[in-house]
Amino acid sequence: MSKRLNWKWLAVALVILAGLVTLQNPSSPVIADESAPGSKSAPASTSTPSSAGGASTPAASPAPPAVPLHTMDISLGQAHVALAAAWEKSKQLGTPMNIAVVDAGGNLKAFIRMDGAWLGSIDIAIKKARTARCFDMPTGEIGKLSQPGGPLYNIELSNDGLISFPGGLPIKASDGSVIGAIGVSGSTVENDHAVAQAGVAALIK
Amino acid sequence: MSKRLNWKWLAVALVILAGLVTLQNPSSPVIADESAPGSKSAPASTSTPSSAGGASTPAASPAPPAVPLHTMDISLGQAHVALAAAWEKSKQLGTPMNIAVVDAGGNLKAFIRMDGAWLGSIDIAIKKARTARCFDMPTGEIGKLSQPGGPLYNIELSNDGLISFPGGLPIKASDGSVIGAIGVSGSTVENDHAVAQAGVAALIK
Amino acid sequence: MSKRLNWKWLAVALVILAGLVTLQNPSSPVIADESAPGSKSAPASTSTPSSAGGASTPAASPAPPAVPLHTMDISLGQAHVALAAAWEKSKQLGTPMNIAVVDAGGNLKAFIRMDGAWLGSIDIAIKKARTARCFDMPTGEIGKLSQPGGPLYNIELSNDGLISFPGGLPIKASDGSVIGAIGVSGSTVENDHAVAQAGVAALIK
Amino acid sequence: MSKRLNWKWLAVALVILAGLVTLQNPSSPVIADESAPGSKSAPASTSTPSSAGGASTPAASPAPPAVPLHTMDISLGQAHVALAAAWEKSKQLGTPMNIAVVDAGGNLKAFIRMDGAWLGSIDIAIKKARTARCFDMPTGEIGKLSQPGGPLYNIELSNDGLISFPGGLPIKASDGSVIGAIGVSGSTVENDHAVAQAGVAALIK
Repeated sequence: MSKRLNWKWLAVALVILAGLVTLQNPSSPVIADESAPGSKSAPASTSTPSSAGGASTPAASPAPPAVPLHTMDISLGQAHVALAAAWEKSKQLGTPMNIAVVDAGGNLKAFIRMDGAWLGSIDIAIKKARTARCFDMPTGEIGKLSQPGGPLYNIELSNDGLISFPGGLPIKASDGSVIGAIGVSGSTVENDHAVAQAGVAALIK
Repeated sequence: MSKRLNWKWLAVALVILAGLVTLQNPSSPVIADESAPGSKSAPASTSTPSSAGGASTPAASPAPPAVPLHTMDISLGQAHVALAAAWEKSKQLGTPMNIAVVDAGGNLKAFIRMDGAWLGSIDIAIKKARTARCFDMPTGEIGKLSQPGGPLYNIELSNDGLISFPGGLPIKASDGSVIGAIGVSGSTVENDHAVAQAGVAALIK
Repeated sequence: MSKRLNWKWLAVALVILAGLVTLQNPSSPVIADESAPGSKSAPASTSTPSSAGGASTPAASPAPPAVPLHTMDISLGQAHVALAAAWEKSKQLGTPMNIAVVDAGGNLKAFIRMDGAWLGSIDIAIKKARTARCFDMPTGEIGKLSQPGGPLYNIELSNDGLISFPGGLPIKASDGSVIGAIGVSGSTVENDHAVAQAGVAALIK
Repeated sequence: MSKRLNWKWLAVALVILAGLVTLQNPSSPVIADESAPGSKSAPASTSTPSSAGGASTPAASPAPPAVPLHTMDISLGQAHVALAAAWEKSKQLGTPMNIAVVDAGGNLKAFIRMDGAWLGSIDIAIKKARTARCFDMPTGEIGKLSQPGGPLYNIELSNDGLISFPGGLPIKASDGSVIGAIGVSGSTVENDHAVAQAGVAALIK
């Protein structure tokens, strides 16, 4: 019986959470339905569930907006345009590069290693691209924060290994949403960054 | 000088690839250019780069369709609806479960472990969800193919570990595109599967 | 037969060890018995078992307290309360967050990623929660000690990766015992910490 | 001084080893020298260095071929040709694929994921290519030997994970030496294999 009570409180808590989701999404059309009385008395239960009673009223909580997000993702056509431009820049700089492109989910979309490029840069290029997508910012920005004494010290140990020096850049759609990222490795970080920039620039017209 | 020549051929090959991308995307406005003789006769150049000489000129190649894909992704509101329905089903079955939801990119979106559920099922639930999104099919379908003698024997060793028995299901949008997946672990595979189904069903109306 | 003798010595050694454990635990109710001459002179048995022979007889040793520990663990109901409060705080701050809760064993209990939150923060939020429970202190406290030259330099490399900057907090029961932890990632470490605090505060009434 | 002696014996042992290597290579131009009495009686030196004393004098031993191996490696130009042909075949089959090319060292050279291809096949395509180069044979051949009861049972667990079902093929130069490999994943193993074959065929003229 106490077990059944626990289930009940968990269900109540879930309803509260669902309500909070809706609060986050003000455009939800179903928000009015939330005034059902049952959820109204749902307490924010603590270890003594009854102690939180009345803290949150279900009536105020709307139903969750169970609709998908409309997103964009990088296409292989775009990835190739970025690769080609980055490649061209590498040639101008006279240094062979590893160049990786990941998609909006951080998964590898396309990759090339130019003849003679460092073997160790395969993984670094891919990690730079993934890192840039992980935090939607240039990898070098993360490196500024992850130094000893900095606020993100040793963040590189997360996510199976991040790279926090320059050479990774997010790729954005025209509406500003991040649809992927490019990572370049094979030379100085300045050159890596310049090549990544060339790749990104080719997609902005 | 020979180095410069190599670069040139590589650039040519890239342009060919870019053209092929366009072929793949029939809605591309530049696809008509594909019938240009240059790209048509493009040989699959071998280790003697000169064999590809003149086969494809950048001028003849169409520009790649450098536009993003329009996609959908599961929202947290949807994830909660799926979790709540799976939870309810778990209660009906009387077995505590681990329930995970991943997004379109295979990344964790939401997770709950019911009180008393197996610790070993945390990872399994997450892996089931990820596996279902990895191949856009129920995890149990993969298990049928990965048995000794089967066509996908030991596929479980890929992707940092897959789970190929029932309990993972893709989550689709109304247009059929996969926007995420749910993975359930904590009981028999039949129960795990039933709970996952309840989660998916709650999003199909 | 020699095998049986070995078992016997192992049993004796185990009893001695149990006695030593008791000596180490001053709050043990059986500690008064420790003044018995037999156990007082009990040597720390070494690799020559015979040297411990007769020094301690099981009868003279205080019985090891072979009873389970009475512990508390976070419930899923509590986890949801913490998640909901953290979520509410995230909305006030206007930044999408990854929020993870682990139990007393450091194992994932519940997790949500708000729409648009950084992908790289999934792992960081979970690692922050686990780190806070690993050492029963705020993650930022560990970061103060893990800097170059500090006493815990590079402790982040242990435990499959720790995160030692702010955003992870232990969750305690009313008696002060740690029953889990919360980890938040998705913004500045100040915001992450504030959201984690909101989650913890919701469970303290 | 004893240290210097050790170095001397190590040098002697190395020369003996070099001689043995030459014995194993019948095409070696120095093989005629092998009939020298000294090397003929050369013992396989063991842990008692003195047993090899005087058995072989550097003068009598054939000189070790201390020159680099002349090898060939896949160029990025070739990788693109293989990718383009595999891509074309994928389109004919109507199934989006992940296609990876590794070099003679088994390191990633180029990769593409066609729009809509399975996320789980990124890793599998790369692993297929690496597996094919690891053993210079089609991945499917390894799968025949790795079944329960077979001579290579569970070989998939080595090398950070191999894939032993069809879809990976070695790429050879015109002299038959393996210069890389291609791996394809995204459909049935038959389709994966056919696409890999198209990639390889494009480099054989």
